Amino acid sequence: MSAPLIDKYRKMATFDWKKLKAAVEGEEHVRLKSEVVAKMKSEPVFHRDYRVLSREEQREVVHQRWKKIVEWGLFKDPYSDLENFHALTETLEAYDQGTSARLFLHGNVFGAAVKSMGTDRHKDLIQKTENNEIVGAFCLTEVGHGSNTAEIQTTATFDNGELVFNTPSVSAIKCWAGNLAHSATHVVVYAQLHVEGKNEGFHGFVIQVRCPRTFQTLPGITIGDMGSKPGCWQGVENGWMEFKNHRAPLSALLNKGCDITPDGKYVTSFKSASEKQSVSLGTLSVGRLGIIAKGMMACTFASTIAIRYSVARRQFGPVKGAENEIPVLEYPLQQYRLFPYLSAAICIRIFQKKFVGHFTEYMMRVIMGEKSDELSEFSKEVHALSSGAKPVATWLGVESLGEARKACGGHGYLQMSRLNTLRDDNDPSQTFEGENFMILQQTSNILLGKAQSIGSIETPMSTMSFLNQKPSKFSSWSSNPVNDVLSAYRYLTYHLLQTTSAEAYRLKASGKNSFEVRNEIQIHRAVNLSVAYTEHTMIHWVQQFLKEIEDQSVKPVLQKVLNLFSLFLLERHLATLYITGYASGGKFGEDLREKLRLAVAELKPEAIALVDSIAPDDFILHSALGASDGKAYEHIMEEFRKYTNEQPRWVCDLAQFLQKRSQGSKL
Amino acid sequence: MSAPLIDKYRKMATFDWKKLKAAVEGEEHVRLKSEVVAKMKSEPVFHRDYRVLSREEQREVVHQRWKKIVEWGLFKDPYSDLENFHALTETLEAYDQGTSARLFLHGNVFGAAVKSMGTDRHKDLIQKTENNEIVGAFCLTEVGHGSNTAEIQTTATFDNGELVFNTPSVSAIKCWAGNLAHSATHVVVYAQLHVEGKNEGFHGFVIQVRCPRTFQTLPGITIGDMGSKPGCWQGVENGWMEFKNHRAPLSALLNKGCDITPDGKYVTSFKSASEKQSVSLGTLSVGRLGIIAKGMMACTFASTIAIRYSVARRQFGPVKGAENEIPVLEYPLQQYRLFPYLSAAICIRIFQKKFVGHFTEYMMRVIMGEKSDELSEFSKEVHALSSGAKPVATWLGVESLGEARKACGGHGYLQMSRLNTLRDDNDPSQTFEGENFMILQQTSNILLGKAQSIGSIETPMSTMSFLNQKPSKFSSWSSNPVNDVLSAYRYLTYHLLQTTSAEAYRLKASGKNSFEVRNEIQIHRAVNLSVAYTEHTMIHWVQQFLKEIEDQSVKPVLQKVLNLFSLFLLERHLATLYITGYASGGKFGEDLREKLRLAVAELKPEAIALVDSIAPDDFILHSALGASDGKAYEHIMEEFRKYTNEQPRWVCDLAQFLQKRSQGSKL
Ligand SMILES: Cc1cc2nc3c(=O)[nH]c(=O)nc-3n(C[C@H](O)[C@H](O)[C@H](O)COP(=O)(O)OP(=O)(O)OC[C@H]3O[C@@H](n4cnc5c(N)ncnc54)[C@H](O)[C@@H]3O)c2cc1C
Ligand SMILES: Cc1cc2nc3c(=O)[nH]c(=O)nc-3n(C[C@H](O)[C@H](O)[C@H](O)COP(=O)(O)OP(=O)(O)OC[C@H]3O[C@@H](n4cnc5c(N)ncnc54)[C@H](O)[C@@H]3O)c2cc1C
Repeated sequence: MSAPLIDKYRKMATFDWKKLKAAVEGEEHVRLKSEVVAKMKSEPVFHRDYRVLSREEQREVVHQRWKKIVEWGLFKDPYSDLENFHALTETLEAYDQGTSARLFLHGNVFGAAVKSMGTDRHKDLIQKTENNEIVGAFCLTEVGHGSNTAEIQTTATFDNGELVFNTPSVSAIKCWAGNLAHSATHVVVYAQLHVEGKNEGFHGFVIQVRCPRTFQTLPGITIGDMGSKPGCWQGVENGWMEFKNHRAPLSALLNKGCDITPDGKYVTSFKSASEKQSVSLGTLSVGRLGIIAKGMMACTFASTIAIRYSVARRQFGPVKGAENEIPVLEYPLQQYRLFPYLSAAICIRIFQKKFVGHFTEYMMRVIMGEKSDELSEFSKEVHALSSGAKPVATWLGVESLGEARKACGGHGYLQMSRLNTLRDDNDPSQTFEGENFMILQQTSNILLGKAQSIGSIETPMSTMSFLNQKPSKFSSWSSNPVNDVLSAYRYLTYHLLQTTSAEAYRLKASGKNSFEVRNEIQIHRAVNLSVAYTEHTMIHWVQQFLKEIEDQSVKPVLQKVLNLFSLFLLERHLATLYITGYASGGKFGEDLREKLRLAVAELKPEAIALVDSIAPDDFILHSALGASDGKAYEHIMEEFRKYTNEQPRWVCDLAQFLQKRSQGSKL
Repeated sequence: MSAPLIDKYRKMATFDWKKLKAAVEGEEHVRLKSEVVAKMKSEPVFHRDYRVLSREEQREVVHQRWKKIVEWGLFKDPYSDLENFHALTETLEAYDQGTSARLFLHGNVFGAAVKSMGTDRHKDLIQKTENNEIVGAFCLTEVGHGSNTAEIQTTATFDNGELVFNTPSVSAIKCWAGNLAHSATHVVVYAQLHVEGKNEGFHGFVIQVRCPRTFQTLPGITIGDMGSKPGCWQGVENGWMEFKNHRAPLSALLNKGCDITPDGKYVTSFKSASEKQSVSLGTLSVGRLGIIAKGMMACTFASTIAIRYSVARRQFGPVKGAENEIPVLEYPLQQYRLFPYLSAAICIRIFQKKFVGHFTEYMMRVIMGEKSDELSEFSKEVHALSSGAKPVATWLGVESLGEARKACGGHGYLQMSRLNTLRDDNDPSQTFEGENFMILQQTSNILLGKAQSIGSIETPMSTMSFLNQKPSKFSSWSSNPVNDVLSAYRYLTYHLLQTTSAEAYRLKASGKNSFEVRNEIQIHRAVNLSVAYTEHTMIHWVQQFLKEIEDQSVKPVLQKVLNLFSLFLLERHLATLYITGYASGGKFGEDLREKLRLAVAELKPEAIALVDSIAPDDFILHSALGASDGKAYEHIMEEFRKYTNEQPRWVCDLAQFLQKRSQGSKL
């Protein structure tokens, strides 16, 4: 076993991984990313080992790294320099989500909120934000309210030309705001605006919270940290904040579409509270696209680490003798457990990139001031799809890391595998920017709203058009599994829409109110509807990408990847396919599963090269089990040797204790 | 919201939770556990907060706690004082698996191995082990071998009346041995025994590795730590060990059934290498029953924390206004996500307790020296069931903690919820004492071995008897969901056995060797077979327990619990039920899912009282979200307030940096 086995596996592939990478990610993106990586490698502050840092240490390194990135001046505005922005973002997200959260929350959450809700009077602040002269945080969540943002309880009361902020109860204390506990000088904060004794509802404000020199909090503001957190979020200073008659100037009100006149009258151009709220929170939906990428990245890490390790790891063989043991990657079961996430890493990337393209077009039209029915349809569709894709991608991502850990056996549990930490890092992606089950309701609500217009559904991204045709049941398999899968998804989505909608009617007719109805149709119906619609779109978009791909040399392997991805997803709906009547008889399911097993097996010779095409640089990957040289044992032992012959101070106490026990027993 | 809502939910229950607890756990067990808890509460060394300790700190507290427990003299031998042993074990496991590992690895793994493989010449060592004059570790795993223990490469060579230990390669370095890195004075170590130039195969040895006074390693031995690990295992000093001509006396050989004569001849009474190996590793299967309990405990923690929090957490409501918001436990979807694990916590406990009963009977017969065909059938059946139940229970356990975290929204991600840490704590239970997918193969191998004797299968625990009758397809639902579920499982298991066995034949006939055949029948077939067999037994045993229960007042609620557990498990096989032909047509699946939703809903009024009946004492639970007083927000804020106005030292640097940015922009 002198030359690592991984080289043998590299040679099995039918394609050139660099070409595949270029085809999927774009050459420029690949080049820009490697520039960022080179920059990071050359800076000692980005170097790291496998020790677990304390809360204090972790935050200090995040601070140092953040400073470096700001100094580099690389972190550009997404709209002025899209390519650089994506390259930097992706690299940082892969390197450490804590560090990237530090930058994002300031620029893309705090900054974007001020920009989108503010007016000319906030220009100076926006300037300072872009120039990193201040540090921003985003304070929406309260101890008692996260998902139900409309009911947050912090108050901002107009008084004598100023705004007075208060926290009326424990559950109104702001919390979870990243950057807040130690660094923020300014925050965007949401509160109920009271003017002349009337609650004008949910509004966004921007206020200063600390003196930028002493970092003391301003009068009437108490800020604290939330204590320990898992994974990389230990390095993020999520804070809580309590107001007691904190006075801020009137300019704190982010006054696009509403204002308070100098003589203290509230005026607004919003037609309804919900219109105002949707503008106030509009910036949040942008974030969802970024979170889809977190899911993709999780699948990327999981499959890279576990598949490379599965080549180095040999266990059992056809005949006795350690020399006859085979790499665990050879076991069909091991492949079945890992390859679907490899295919997901690639397909979600392709899907997400296309989605970002659509979204950018949408945003451009919004920024240009377009007001049209089509644009509002566009907004709805973006909302439906992002609210479906964020849960699907993040659930897959977290699941993939759990499975990868198990597939690496005991060594997967070492800190240096990084798999448990990565799982903890990604865990909250299922919750923030919209709790997954909550936003799936948004997708199904929009779809259910279309149930009446079947036959004439038209949307800008055409993700719902297939619902116009009554789909037919399964008749036979074609030679193209992806087409077969898409047909099944169309039937599934259509039928789930029909049955969920019918169930809602039935419940309404039985006297339930719309709140009860919505709650009662979720399980097995609305939830599955949202997921089926989303997965259909994902698969369909990747299929389109494949049709348009220029480099024909990588098309066959991508086809294999998509075959697996689509069969893997569909198999999870097999029971529902039977229930909705798409097929009957055992053979359909048996066939589907056989096709799935086949699709898994077909990826085996390509697996290591596919991993090479998605894996981040070793420096970013930072996993003893997943390094590209395939020398897992060497890396493991290198780390082990650092802890040779350790004698913690309590061993003395142990020696005395054993001594005492032994004397005791002789009495 | 002055009186916590939890009290209202407590009153909804139809039963007395204390009676339920006594019925399920036994009064004596409940009493003994509360004695242990009281003892722990009174000792400051067992107090803890929510900070994450460093590797060094965590190990030091484990050492201190271990000392206290040894001083109490509570940790008795399982066979001489079963009740006390179980009460202590369960309490410690719930308190911190790291601390309990410290005790277990010494007494129940190291000690048990010496006892079972050793002879009279090891009596003194056993005495010292029981008296805690030495510290033991168990060294089986090597860097290159875990699952395939037969191929471990460490050698023990007979030379001049002594045994010489060597580590021939990097992959032969012992690793993962708990207690080894700092504390162990002695270890049981497995190696290939070479006598007169011949490899006599895999043997167990017990050797001293450190001086008990200086704790220096003995000549020819290098020991180190494995660095950082996740969760409570950070507190466990899993170590690695390398031999270079380490000489030990001949008495190191654990010589039950084999020996080396004074003149250097190897003698053995074992008939085959596999017989020897199964005796050498026999002690391991005992452990599996303990690991099933880890899965149960994980479900217990997950459902306790998430269900109690779901009552305190109110979000959304039928009409606007924070005062109209309802506890998230009211949402059918939230119930659907959590109640199955509550039912699993209770049912797995009942199953595991019964299994321990059977196992104890089995061990008694072994210890009495019985040698019979029936006993060897017993051994096989215990092996099949424990190899199935350990995966089923630990997968459910880890899954439950992940779902519970998500169900607690953002606050679930705080360290003080304990959910992520508990997930990390439980994660390796899926891997150690037999990697889950590996041992499922043992279950299916045993079942497949029975395929030929259908009609006359008889085993001591009768878990396979149902296979003797050809089961019939679904005809209609009865009034008892558990009976319906069991019928479905019988059909499922029977058919999976038939089809898996047929597939194996087909592959063999096509020229594949038995290694290939075994690998190729796993996915969708052998794996599902093992799981179905195990789940059938679990449900069946709980049903039997219910039939025999004395306290009739708790029977109805336990019936609800079992209804849910069995429907929940079966629903996961719905697609396979269709494939195997148990049912056809959408209605069957729709009905099954409706029954499942109903079973979930029926548990709602009982949920909090059920949680009370399984929840460990608050001191042990140690979760701000899950405390029995239902005051989650108060506990969260109490912790938050500890971190008020923190100013880490780097904030100075940040202030200067912002200052510089601002000056720069003005130039
Ligand atoms: C690491 C991290 C960073 C964060 N950063 C920020 C930040 O910078 N700024 C900020 O303002 N916030 C931040 N948050 C907060 C985050 O946005 C919220 O936690 C998130 O929106 C989820 O809301 P919640 O916690 O209220 O969940 P909850 O709504 O309390 O969810 C709890 C459970 O109830 C269920 N549930 C709730 N309502 C319903 C319903 N109607 N039907 C069915 N089920 C329901 C949910 O599905 C979930 O299972 C952060 C959170 C985390 C974990
Ligand atoms: C926290 C912890 C504590 C431990 N404590 C101890 C201890 O005290 N003493 C000790 O000796 N050991 C200990 N161990 C080691 C543990 O026993 C092994 O890790 C465990 O047996 C799994 O073996 P492995 O790591 O070799 O997994 P591997 O066998 O390497 O498994 C890797 C992957 O390969 C797959 N695979 C392997 N063979 C096959 C096959 N034939 N077919 C299909 N798939 C296959 C597995 O399913 C898995 O997905 C500990 C481990 C941990 C994590």
